[in-house]
Amino acid sequence: MVPKRVVIVGGGFGGLACIRQLKRAPVEITLIDRRNFHLFQPLLYQVATGGLSPANIAAPLRCIVRKQKNVRVLLSEVVDFNLTNRTLILSEGPPISYDFLVVATGSTHHYFGKDAQWEPHAPGLKTIEDATLIRRRVLSAFEQAESTTDLDLRKRLLTFVIIGGGPTGVELAGSICELAHQTMRNEFRSIDPAKARVILVENSPAILERYHPSLSQKGKEALSSLGAEVWNETRLTDLGEGYAVVSRQGKEERIETSTVLWAAGVKASPLGLLLAKAAAVADSSKPIETDRAGRVVVDPYCCLPGHNEVGVIGDLANQKGADGNPLPGVAPVAVQQGEYLGRRISDLAKRNWDIEKGSEKPFRYWDKGNMATIGRSRAIMESGKIRASGRIAWLAWLFIHILYLARFENRIMVLFQWGWNYVTRNRTARLITGRDPISPSNPK
Amino acid sequence: MVPKRVVIVGGGFGGLACIRQLKRAPVEITLIDRRNFHLFQPLLYQVATGGLSPANIAAPLRCIVRKQKNVRVLLSEVVDFNLTNRTLILSEGPPISYDFLVVATGSTHHYFGKDAQWEPHAPGLKTIEDATLIRRRVLSAFEQAESTTDLDLRKRLLTFVIIGGGPTGVELAGSICELAHQTMRNEFRSIDPAKARVILVENSPAILERYHPSLSQKGKEALSSLGAEVWNETRLTDLGEGYAVVSRQGKEERIETSTVLWAAGVKASPLGLLLAKAAAVADSSKPIETDRAGRVVVDPYCCLPGHNEVGVIGDLANQKGADGNPLPGVAPVAVQQGEYLGRRISDLAKRNWDIEKGSEKPFRYWDKGNMATIGRSRAIMESGKIRASGRIAWLAWLFIHILYLARFENRIMVLFQWGWNYVTRNRTARLITGRDPISPSNPK
Repeated sequence: MVPKRVVIVGGGFGGLACIRQLKRAPVEITLIDRRNFHLFQPLLYQVATGGLSPANIAAPLRCIVRKQKNVRVLLSEVVDFNLTNRTLILSEGPPISYDFLVVATGSTHHYFGKDAQWEPHAPGLKTIEDATLIRRRVLSAFEQAESTTDLDLRKRLLTFVIIGGGPTGVELAGSICELAHQTMRNEFRSIDPAKARVILVENSPAILERYHPSLSQKGKEALSSLGAEVWNETRLTDLGEGYAVVSRQGKEERIETSTVLWAAGVKASPLGLLLAKAAAVADSSKPIETDRAGRVVVDPYCCLPGHNEVGVIGDLANQKGADGNPLPGVAPVAVQQGEYLGRRISDLAKRNWDIEKGSEKPFRYWDKGNMATIGRSRAIMESGKIRASGRIAWLAWLFIHILYLARFENRIMVLFQWGWNYVTRNRTARLITGRDPISPSNPK
Repeated sequence: MVPKRVVIVGGGFGGLACIRQLKRAPVEITLIDRRNFHLFQPLLYQVATGGLSPANIAAPLRCIVRKQKNVRVLLSEVVDFNLTNRTLILSEGPPISYDFLVVATGSTHHYFGKDAQWEPHAPGLKTIEDATLIRRRVLSAFEQAESTTDLDLRKRLLTFVIIGGGPTGVELAGSICELAHQTMRNEFRSIDPAKARVILVENSPAILERYHPSLSQKGKEALSSLGAEVWNETRLTDLGEGYAVVSRQGKEERIETSTVLWAAGVKASPLGLLLAKAAAVADSSKPIETDRAGRVVVDPYCCLPGHNEVGVIGDLANQKGADGNPLPGVAPVAVQQGEYLGRRISDLAKRNWDIEKGSEKPFRYWDKGNMATIGRSRAIMESGKIRASGRIAWLAWLFIHILYLARFENRIMVLFQWGWNYVTRNRTARLITGRDPISPSNPK
């Protein structure tokens, strides 16, 4: 019997979890990704603020799946799906056929319909290139502030605005505070980097909204103690070269700033809409729903409704949780969905690939808890009714992140880099790289 | 008394050595560099082949000189010199005055007058960006070879040509062999990366020419044992998209290759010619000589002839050694010249800055020896009449490089990264980064 072909698009948490689950399954797996590495996104903010190197949080996909002989890695881009013929069209080369398809291409930034105007002024944090761009902008701002004699410009250069008070925004704000107040202390002669203003702008009344109010309050206090200003109930209304305008307590307020970072909204990878279109082409009587963020609304089996052979998982999927709300776009959801689909495909392979008669249980997300870090020795965590903050939460956060990274061979390096940074309060990966190293506004 | 102003242009080996020497001197030092970090160039080939991360071999300049209170770092670019007024013109901001100027801006690639035609097809290795570009090209070639079904294209993609058999060329060739034959083993399904051809093209009869013939022969044997082909007495005559033409044994030979790397020629940073021009403007009766590579011919005191207050050191300087030949463009020369000038400036400060009456000894280079590495456990070294090769030379090389790196705080990370790579034979920094991750020919 010819082994069935499983195609996985996207080597993120979801895709790799699915592949791991298929270790012993008699299938031929093709993993397609645009990048040659898996990225441990939860630590990307560390790269953006010079604490870690890109290679510390990324591992070559080929290296990860090397020992799994039923996997082939293809560095390519999917440009279309044909759900009738069960093929993928790639940007180059012949189409790829599948018996089971898993799409797990994640998400990208979302500027609430203002992408064209706002994106150039407020980079988001999703890729390695985003991280090195942010690193470059933040570090260059301090450099320019040191060399200029224009006091207004200096003030603007030393004002950092982060839009969005979720985990990414909080981590960025905390890290920039540490960078300015601790790491860079004594490194400048004309400016005092500790005078830098870091403003976190959040629409809702609390930051870290997903957490219990007491924890979100703790997070806010920790951020404030690091020197950040947390502006709740504040909405960004305009953004341009050198300024941001927010609406706060009923008033418009203009902030002179040369560095605005975006941590507010995400939308699904464009493959979501492409998949919905392909489903409509395949059978116009079974339209596929996508939500406002472009995520594909999937059935309880992590599959396209009407297409039991097409799974959609992770940030690309809109799947209802036990409380009726869509599951959050976090790594554990993607991992569990990937494992679920992996088990399902293994079962199918055992039952002679009799795909329609699947009587399996629907996917259920097991929420083990959440944690966010604010800075050195500062974090919050919550698991069911257990809540913790401060050093204990931070150690737990550290432990769990190293445990996860362990799978990708980089654990040791990250551990030492962190240890080194912790002891010396230094960040050794503070490199301004890219085309023009001097001008911070120059895009990479 | 107002402290005298010392301006150092370039934070490489020479500039930093000079600054270190001035630790206790009553002077005000300004270090000007286009980049915010010092780069440990001897290990750049490790970044280009995925063994180390950029941050492993680069350290922020501010961090290096943080404790030296008489130093100020300015991230800027020198666009002109005025030797009469003793000022520097920067790309932005007011001119900078100096009492003593040290120019140490190093070298860049040199394509023997064919820069425009050859550079796009054969990147050289001088900056972090060069290294990540080469890394991207080499890794992408393997990726494309895996995904294509065109056998001719595959063969071309798996042929790597390195122009220049000096230390950089040898290190690159050795590393690419290790990458292909060891690191990537079992990672591909359609190609066997061990079948990759690595051709080292060298004009002269021997590679590593600066070494004793017996060592250069050992180096050649080590390279061959790693799987590289060493083509001596071979000259590059043409270069284009997908091919290189060489003249070998009296015949023209066309190599189908999609990756050509340049390690053949360097020329001095453009500041050398700028300095010569400025000297002519200041006093046309005292013209400054530059050599064919654009290096400034300096006097025995590492200074511009006729300008005892302007030092030029490192790769930017052409200074005659004891044998009458110019000193080689290696780090120890730059370091010793920097220390020499640092001592000289300290003396001047002690003697009330009476600059014309200097009766100091001329600079003498103390050649402690040379070493080159070919690959894992393979190196050659020579110091006076002592010569070694193989594992002993490699351990010595490792030890000395770690010792040097120690000064820049990254020692521990590099040590662990190396240890890790050595044990696992892996290279974890194999990331294809840049704008378009898929196409290798797309410039970063």
